[in-house]
Amino acid sequence: MAVYTHLAAEDLAALIAAYDVGELVSAKGIAEGVSNSNWLIETSGKDGHGARFILTMYERRIDTAYLPFYLGLLDHLSARGCPVPATIHDRDGSLSREIDGKSVALIEFLPGVSVDRPTPGQARAVGAALAQLHLAVSDFPMTGVQTMGLAEWDRLINSCGHDGLAQIDPGLPEIAFGELSHLAAEWPAGLPQGVVHCDLFPDNVLMLGDEVSGLIDFYFAAEDFFAYDLAVTHAAWSFTTDGSNYRPEIGSALIEGYRSRRSLSVSELAELPTLARGACMRFISSRAYDWLHTPPDALVTRKDPMAFVRRLQFYAAAGQRPFAS
Amino acid sequence: MAVYTHLAAEDLAALIAAYDVGELVSAKGIAEGVSNSNWLIETSGKDGHGARFILTMYERRIDTAYLPFYLGLLDHLSARGCPVPATIHDRDGSLSREIDGKSVALIEFLPGVSVDRPTPGQARAVGAALAQLHLAVSDFPMTGVQTMGLAEWDRLINSCGHDGLAQIDPGLPEIAFGELSHLAAEWPAGLPQGVVHCDLFPDNVLMLGDEVSGLIDFYFAAEDFFAYDLAVTHAAWSFTTDGSNYRPEIGSALIEGYRSRRSLSVSELAELPTLARGACMRFISSRAYDWLHTPPDALVTRKDPMAFVRRLQFYAAAGQRPFAS
Repeated sequence: MAVYTHLAAEDLAALIAAYDVGELVSAKGIAEGVSNSNWLIETSGKDGHGARFILTMYERRIDTAYLPFYLGLLDHLSARGCPVPATIHDRDGSLSREIDGKSVALIEFLPGVSVDRPTPGQARAVGAALAQLHLAVSDFPMTGVQTMGLAEWDRLINSCGHDGLAQIDPGLPEIAFGELSHLAAEWPAGLPQGVVHCDLFPDNVLMLGDEVSGLIDFYFAAEDFFAYDLAVTHAAWSFTTDGSNYRPEIGSALIEGYRSRRSLSVSELAELPTLARGACMRFISSRAYDWLHTPPDALVTRKDPMAFVRRLQFYAAAGQRPFAS
Repeated sequence: MAVYTHLAAEDLAALIAAYDVGELVSAKGIAEGVSNSNWLIETSGKDGHGARFILTMYERRIDTAYLPFYLGLLDHLSARGCPVPATIHDRDGSLSREIDGKSVALIEFLPGVSVDRPTPGQARAVGAALAQLHLAVSDFPMTGVQTMGLAEWDRLINSCGHDGLAQIDPGLPEIAFGELSHLAAEWPAGLPQGVVHCDLFPDNVLMLGDEVSGLIDFYFAAEDFFAYDLAVTHAAWSFTTDGSNYRPEIGSALIEGYRSRRSLSVSELAELPTLARGACMRFISSRAYDWLHTPPDALVTRKDPMAFVRRLQFYAAAGQRPFAS
């Protein structure tokens, strides 16, 4: 959550001049992104009326390889009317440029704020926006391999090991290893799929009142089941932050909003409980790994894996109930 | 350089509603401020045409006591046409409000970027803006004690001690202690004074081309000699960052710009070399102290005290020359 690179105003002005967006008026480093640096940029705009953008600098080489996929996905979705930031192409038509050997990309700035305590009306709108996304990717020509799937959860949990997990919570090893076996046996196949967001937490949704004004941060987007993406979103939105309370009115509104735009097949509906347990396992595994590998005094706030263990326990006990609408 | 507090969008919207600025449209935590959290806020504006603000949360109790001074100074200067952000008063006329026991203040957002490599035209504009500030404070009714003056430099350098300073550079103890004696003997008295900025580095100036669009960060503002403030600004602007090269065209343009708005008395001119050495000592002492008290792996970048030792050596050798225009 920081700006890792100092960009001189002079270099920034030269960069902005490579785009047809007017002249640089303001640039503020924003406290978003974990491995990227981001600036909120204001320019005079093409018409002199001002325009705003987000400039992202990809600090790690590895991210650069995925840029055509991420940025291409934004362009595809935005062209289909989804509320995602469109990318700004430079005067040569490129989606990204280089500064000092690092890739940078300019995207549209979208208004809106991320809510902490969603209302049912907001959850309904998020469900509908997610369904819209799932419909819009049907003809997206690229694909992205799911690197955060079952095999990776298994690898992360095994890398933490029994003792590591027990350090986090004495009950965690049994829950985590037990759940991995359950999921390996029960994980569905053959459900409708496409490139999905996979990380649609409230932070990644911008809202203006009850309207979704932006879906952002597609860095975990990958080919997976649409219903899995819905399950991730359900787990991310329908609980109090620490996972100890399910908010049924939010869960129902989310599913209802989704089904208002895209219908769920009988198999998708039947598999939602398993997919939701998988969604919890995905965050338990990455959070447990990060918990053990992040010094307690590091800048990055460690996220509690137990918040998703509580969600997992809820889904394991509740079966089909949270997905009826 | 971070946002230390999470502010829920719902709480932020309620805060913004206490001001007559329209509804909250967007809020981005910005990577500015060392002990404060800052957000770039967009609202629908009074007239529905949109407006932008900076919201600052003062994380430390101690800062709160100075708020009436800082914010009152901004209001005073802004009312006199200086390019500083005006404060936004809430519907009850208050300059600041409280959230969770912390003070927050809303100020105008100003366009512009901070330059890294100023041109003579920009230096001239900064000199003129500084003089305008000095003229405008003449009837400012409050005062702020200079807590970063000679006595404090002395305290900081003595707290580092001979060994601490020698860790930074083997030559530093002799230079620092020698300079403190020199300054104690030579520091002038009776020069024209008022509440001055004392920290007008390029980061604290927003520019649009050759125009100064904003002077910001008045957190070191205090009662001191106008010519000392000019000396600080001269030392901050007229060298390459590491202090190894004086840029005469920048130094001259700065002085020229200043004198175009406010004339310097014979005593002020005569004392500028001593004041400039003092300005260097001010940053040597605080940087040396921070250098020894900041872990090398901390988030905050340690600033090299030697960059101001080089400036000090330049001023000690150059005498009156850099201040002739």
